[in-house]
Amino acid sequence: MNIDMIRAAAGRAKGIVRRTPLLSSPFLDEIAGRPVYVKPECLQHTGSFKFRGGWSALSALDPETRARGVIAYSSGNHAQGVAHAAQRHGVPAVIVMPSDAPQLKIANTRALGAEVVLYERGKEPREEIGQAIAHDRGLTLIRPFDEPQVIAGQGTCGLEIAEQAAEMEIHEAEVLVCCGGGGLTAGIALALAAEAPRMRVRPVEPEGFDDTARSLDAGQITGHGQPEKGLCDAILTPRPGDITFPIMKDLCGPGIVVTESQVRRAVALAFLRLKIVAEPGGAVALAAALFHGDALAPGPVITTISGGNIDPALFARILSEHQG
Amino acid sequence: MNIDMIRAAAGRAKGIVRRTPLLSSPFLDEIAGRPVYVKPECLQHTGSFKFRGGWSALSALDPETRARGVIAYSSGNHAQGVAHAAQRHGVPAVIVMPSDAPQLKIANTRALGAEVVLYERGKEPREEIGQAIAHDRGLTLIRPFDEPQVIAGQGTCGLEIAEQAAEMEIHEAEVLVCCGGGGLTAGIALALAAEAPRMRVRPVEPEGFDDTARSLDAGQITGHGQPEKGLCDAILTPRPGDITFPIMKDLCGPGIVVTESQVRRAVALAFLRLKIVAEPGGAVALAAALFHGDALAPGPVITTISGGNIDPALFARILSEHQG
Repeated sequence: MNIDMIRAAAGRAKGIVRRTPLLSSPFLDEIAGRPVYVKPECLQHTGSFKFRGGWSALSALDPETRARGVIAYSSGNHAQGVAHAAQRHGVPAVIVMPSDAPQLKIANTRALGAEVVLYERGKEPREEIGQAIAHDRGLTLIRPFDEPQVIAGQGTCGLEIAEQAAEMEIHEAEVLVCCGGGGLTAGIALALAAEAPRMRVRPVEPEGFDDTARSLDAGQITGHGQPEKGLCDAILTPRPGDITFPIMKDLCGPGIVVTESQVRRAVALAFLRLKIVAEPGGAVALAAALFHGDALAPGPVITTISGGNIDPALFARILSEHQG
Repeated sequence: MNIDMIRAAAGRAKGIVRRTPLLSSPFLDEIAGRPVYVKPECLQHTGSFKFRGGWSALSALDPETRARGVIAYSSGNHAQGVAHAAQRHGVPAVIVMPSDAPQLKIANTRALGAEVVLYERGKEPREEIGQAIAHDRGLTLIRPFDEPQVIAGQGTCGLEIAEQAAEMEIHEAEVLVCCGGGGLTAGIALALAAEAPRMRVRPVEPEGFDDTARSLDAGQITGHGQPEKGLCDAILTPRPGDITFPIMKDLCGPGIVVTESQVRRAVALAFLRLKIVAEPGGAVALAAALFHGDALAPGPVITTISGGNIDPALFARILSEHQG
């Protein structure tokens, strides 16, 4: 993994992957007590940053391999990212999803042309299911985060952050990244280490699922030991990846852990002040920017909103809680 | 009014006004039966395109005049746009607002540093109130749409549409614009006439408030005769402007009228498929793109979402209606 792979991924993404803007609001600055800039990857194709990695991985395959098709296992956002990337390449995609994933994510993945194979979360190891089908049909497995070309694709988000921050003359900042397996965090950290070395990346996780924060504290990979189910479903991976963790250990500051109630407030504030739709897992970094200022170095903070694939009923409930 | 004024406004807006992206979704394309591109001005500073016009008007004043301050009358979005533009220039702003405007818009306008003067809609003519205060305090009145520098500012949205469409190799399209007094419509029409002459601008209004559509049909300014109150509060002006109408008459195709129920569906679909927050008045053009294809020439359609300042309770209600 190196910056050249990210630059190459950016070249392959040109005209395909959406360049998301860098947003801000004086109302958020006031809550945080510092300037807050938001990179809304919910506006990316398929509603999350995962399309970056999916496109990068598929476009890096040799055409013959790619034509046989790809397979992915995912709780939802990686599924949609890979499905849409395959659809745009005109090749088949099989997606292995937990049967209790949000209905919207399952439906979207099917609508994007993929064949969906469901499994029972906690009973069957999804990695084994994925590898078995891949072997039987000659498909290429696209791992959700522990895959160099996927990390390279997520890193293109970091290249954009570096460029957009430089345009605003921001060269030093804490950069908060929603962290599941660490693909986005590691990709952004690699990109910024090369392009904006005075920025420091901080992984953010929800309470109870702080495997990356604990691994960084311990200096070695540590799991959170919880079932992968909760409000922030998009980022509840059991442990950081074997490829992503050493990168984060080298390049990132300590992890930050936020509560579910802070995440719900962040979702409501992204609606009210930025006019964007954040899913809970996609709002953890904004929650850290707004409510964990004491864990951050002084100065501006840049935060990802990593996805927006939230069920309408949950979103309506969160808005109802936060009207006062 | 000419394209040079719009280009000059774009020059003054550089680094200040946000360049909003051009979004799309295969799900929306499928509903519309054609490619749909969405220009989400809800992502603009203050949550609507109105900041473009406010910034343009304030930045065009000579510094001495500007320092005395500005005044505006507005149901909400123009208020916030002018208030924020004044705040960033460090000059006072007085905003005359109807007392029944959405609470969120009144509160935001105050939080953006403006002095808010309330009046009773239907009882007192807001224009007279505005002009009286302007005269007493030596403030410059910034009209919401019938003001050349405001139209020039809104036109910068059209310059961006022309550039972004050209990058995607779209040179011919119907361009649907949410239309109140016609400032955004006229500005975009002027910009596209110069930069993308094979695009045709179409004003879109809600049922019952179709003064522009009727004026274009009649070839002269015609009011809708309704009180300015309804779901699409942002765009319920009684008649097109004396400056905006002749521009629209010269450059625009026939108006399109959508129902409130189509607007509510468009708000829900913008949430679900684009992950953005549209207010009802800001969603009329998307509603036309999705549900009035028979009124459009074949080929791609580009649609504005002009604002996202919707009360959370109404947004939650619309989401609850559209889950099936």
